[in-house]
Amino acid sequence: MSSFLSFLKPQNMSLFTDYYELTMCASYFDNKNFEPATFDLFIRRLPENRSYFLFAGLDEALQYLQSIKFTEEHLAYLKKQGFRPDFLDYLGGFKFTGEAWTVPEGTVAFPNEPLIRVTAPIIEAQLVETFLLNTINLQTMIATKASRVVQAAKGKSVIEFGLRREPGIDAGMKVARSSYIAGCQGTSNVLAGMAYGIPVFGTLAHSFIMSYPKEIDAFRAFAKTFPNKSTLLIDTYDDIAGAEKAVIVAKELEAKGFRLGGVRLDSGDLAQTSKKVRKILDDRGLSYVKIFASGDLDEFKITQLLNEGARIDAFGVGTKMGTSADRPYLDVIYKLCETMTANGSFSPIMKLSKDKITLPGRKQVYRFKSKDGGFSRDVIALADEHMEGEALLVKVMENGKLSRELPSLEQIRVVASENLAKLPAEYKQLMNAPTYPVELSQKLQTLIETTKFQLTKNEINRRVI
Amino acid sequence: MSSFLSFLKPQNMSLFTDYYELTMCASYFDNKNFEPATFDLFIRRLPENRSYFLFAGLDEALQYLQSIKFTEEHLAYLKKQGFRPDFLDYLGGFKFTGEAWTVPEGTVAFPNEPLIRVTAPIIEAQLVETFLLNTINLQTMIATKASRVVQAAKGKSVIEFGLRREPGIDAGMKVARSSYIAGCQGTSNVLAGMAYGIPVFGTLAHSFIMSYPKEIDAFRAFAKTFPNKSTLLIDTYDDIAGAEKAVIVAKELEAKGFRLGGVRLDSGDLAQTSKKVRKILDDRGLSYVKIFASGDLDEFKITQLLNEGARIDAFGVGTKMGTSADRPYLDVIYKLCETMTANGSFSPIMKLSKDKITLPGRKQVYRFKSKDGGFSRDVIALADEHMEGEALLVKVMENGKLSRELPSLEQIRVVASENLAKLPAEYKQLMNAPTYPVELSQKLQTLIETTKFQLTKNEINRRVI
Repeated sequence: MSSFLSFLKPQNMSLFTDYYELTMCASYFDNKNFEPATFDLFIRRLPENRSYFLFAGLDEALQYLQSIKFTEEHLAYLKKQGFRPDFLDYLGGFKFTGEAWTVPEGTVAFPNEPLIRVTAPIIEAQLVETFLLNTINLQTMIATKASRVVQAAKGKSVIEFGLRREPGIDAGMKVARSSYIAGCQGTSNVLAGMAYGIPVFGTLAHSFIMSYPKEIDAFRAFAKTFPNKSTLLIDTYDDIAGAEKAVIVAKELEAKGFRLGGVRLDSGDLAQTSKKVRKILDDRGLSYVKIFASGDLDEFKITQLLNEGARIDAFGVGTKMGTSADRPYLDVIYKLCETMTANGSFSPIMKLSKDKITLPGRKQVYRFKSKDGGFSRDVIALADEHMEGEALLVKVMENGKLSRELPSLEQIRVVASENLAKLPAEYKQLMNAPTYPVELSQKLQTLIETTKFQLTKNEINRRVI
Repeated sequence: MSSFLSFLKPQNMSLFTDYYELTMCASYFDNKNFEPATFDLFIRRLPENRSYFLFAGLDEALQYLQSIKFTEEHLAYLKKQGFRPDFLDYLGGFKFTGEAWTVPEGTVAFPNEPLIRVTAPIIEAQLVETFLLNTINLQTMIATKASRVVQAAKGKSVIEFGLRREPGIDAGMKVARSSYIAGCQGTSNVLAGMAYGIPVFGTLAHSFIMSYPKEIDAFRAFAKTFPNKSTLLIDTYDDIAGAEKAVIVAKELEAKGFRLGGVRLDSGDLAQTSKKVRKILDDRGLSYVKIFASGDLDEFKITQLLNEGARIDAFGVGTKMGTSADRPYLDVIYKLCETMTANGSFSPIMKLSKDKITLPGRKQVYRFKSKDGGFSRDVIALADEHMEGEALLVKVMENGKLSRELPSLEQIRVVASENLAKLPAEYKQLMNAPTYPVELSQKLQTLIETTKFQLTKNEINRRVI
């Protein structure tokens, strides 16, 4: 891949971090704290109308961990910010040397389940926080949203069309990738097509139609260039009149041995219009011409259209999927869960801030299945517990290097498809889905109580003011 | 700037486009349409709770126009997609040769006002659509949102803290830049600090506190490293107990000739807690210690906190500002408004799709001011009309090259500040603001009627089905 994709390979993203990661690391360094610690990356809670997460973004997260380093330019900038020379020397030789356990990309996951578990000297484990959160937030948010849209489309194709309003360049790329993982058939983003090997789709815009004196002239011009794969946008002036002109052009193509691919609707009452257009096409023997719809679609709108009997073969879904418009972020966090103590053993850590309690200790997630293979419940346990269920966290990095081959995008897409198929239907309801059972093992519950007791005794020895 | 910032310089973003831009261009090429056309980039409507836009993103938009080109790798990819050799040859020599008129970055703007007006051979003007929309959407959305947050803070500092949940790498950079334009004092994003020269801020996280056996040990360790600029996070276990420990550390610092910078609250009832903490600090002679607050803030929460008498000196605002969470996109569009006809004159173009009507012809926006210099109304007129008001669109690019020097980020920030100051207070209300008057000139209204009549006559000659 050429240099223009360099931002997709985050080898120089070491300063793409919150300033406080660096001040904390400077203080760990100053206080000679190089002991290992474990952090969990997880999502605190489900947004409204979400009942699961589809985990995505791991590939880039691991690229980042493998490649983080500080250049002379970075160090010169940090020097100007007042960091001390000995710490800058340390950063000059910095690399991530830790281990990472993760759930596979494409896995269906739930709140509080560690998705990435990092164990490394605390400076290293701390410094990588911001980037990991940034990339997992975006990609898991979009994969989750897109999986709902695909689910709503009930087997009709969904194409990701949101590039123009996705928030920035990187989002434009990652939305294409994440929505493809979630089951979309392709994207309008040509660069994503090239970078990731995702199929690209697109037809023509209103401006093309409007640039010709008459609509039918525009249709003919486009069909001349793409005689066997034109999809004509028919709603620039009036969708029914547009459909009738598309019929004329389709018949002209037939006379030359070609076939019109489809027509596209982008405004108005898509359900009613699609039925009328389907009838116009079918009445003229054009049942092979597909109807493609776009315009302000999301999982709810698609459900409504299908319930109204829309005759739509494929959906182009843009802004609302590409921005996860009803909830444009996840409550993804990265929390310390154990540190090494002076005697060389790990000590559990948890946070007691109001409404922000975290789970102490190094953990594993076990998934239990019903007889038909469907997911029935998960148990968050301590890492040294052994349970019957499938252990979701697997070691992917050791001593800062990948310890297993990462799957291709197509393989990740299969993992996602299999995971979504095994998630029982009730948990895939678009609204008011029941809560999938995620339990804490008895050992973890006991650890929570003892850790909480110890912390309360140590830290909250005061009268209430 | 080094290569890691290459994604900020979009010289290789030519494939960062919707596929249909390329199919349309292929058909323009195939049909030998190289005539000039004019497109307007504008925002169709105000989102709920917005009463103006703060225009941002122009700098990158113009970088893109100057640098778009197709590499061998791009052409090889497009060849595989089935584009014809003659069109690929054309793309191999492609550059943007047109002119661009824009409102200055940092300008307050309103719906339907052209923000960027591009006139170029139609292939060129069409091809750049997606990138322009993508970058203006993100940056204008965030500048607008951030200006509301700054407005709500009533002179208290606002720091942009959202990097971890901003959607991707590019968003993380652009949010820092756009919110700085809008009046934020700085960002947590170190890379943005380096790339744009924005002040960076940050203290420490709960994990730092939790990595020590006792909270006060963590405070002391951090204060040792940053004796004159520590802001201690006091809510890890209990905010009031944390404040009392911060007092102890502040007194220890005083004994060594240093001063604690501040304390930070990140959870709970920030208004009530800040008052209690302020009293604890003041009672011990620590009135110089600032109180910094973060945690789920936006313009509404900040307003509420200040109304409740919160004693907060600065706000760290993250996710909700950095994602424009209540409306994570703008209805930004790029529409053809004129084409050159066979006789060499320009012909007005407009779109009649349901609810998506556009304004025909090449246009200018005039802004009228009251005696005190405040903005009183805007008029969208034809470009060849001359009016008394200030013409907002200025020519910035001619023959594909910049025709005026672009302002620095600091200068853009001043433009934004002056614009926001001149916008009368009623239009800056966070909710239920009146609609700022944007009128259409008489000539433009006449053009709309004649164009609509002509189109209806040409295109909608059918019975209603």
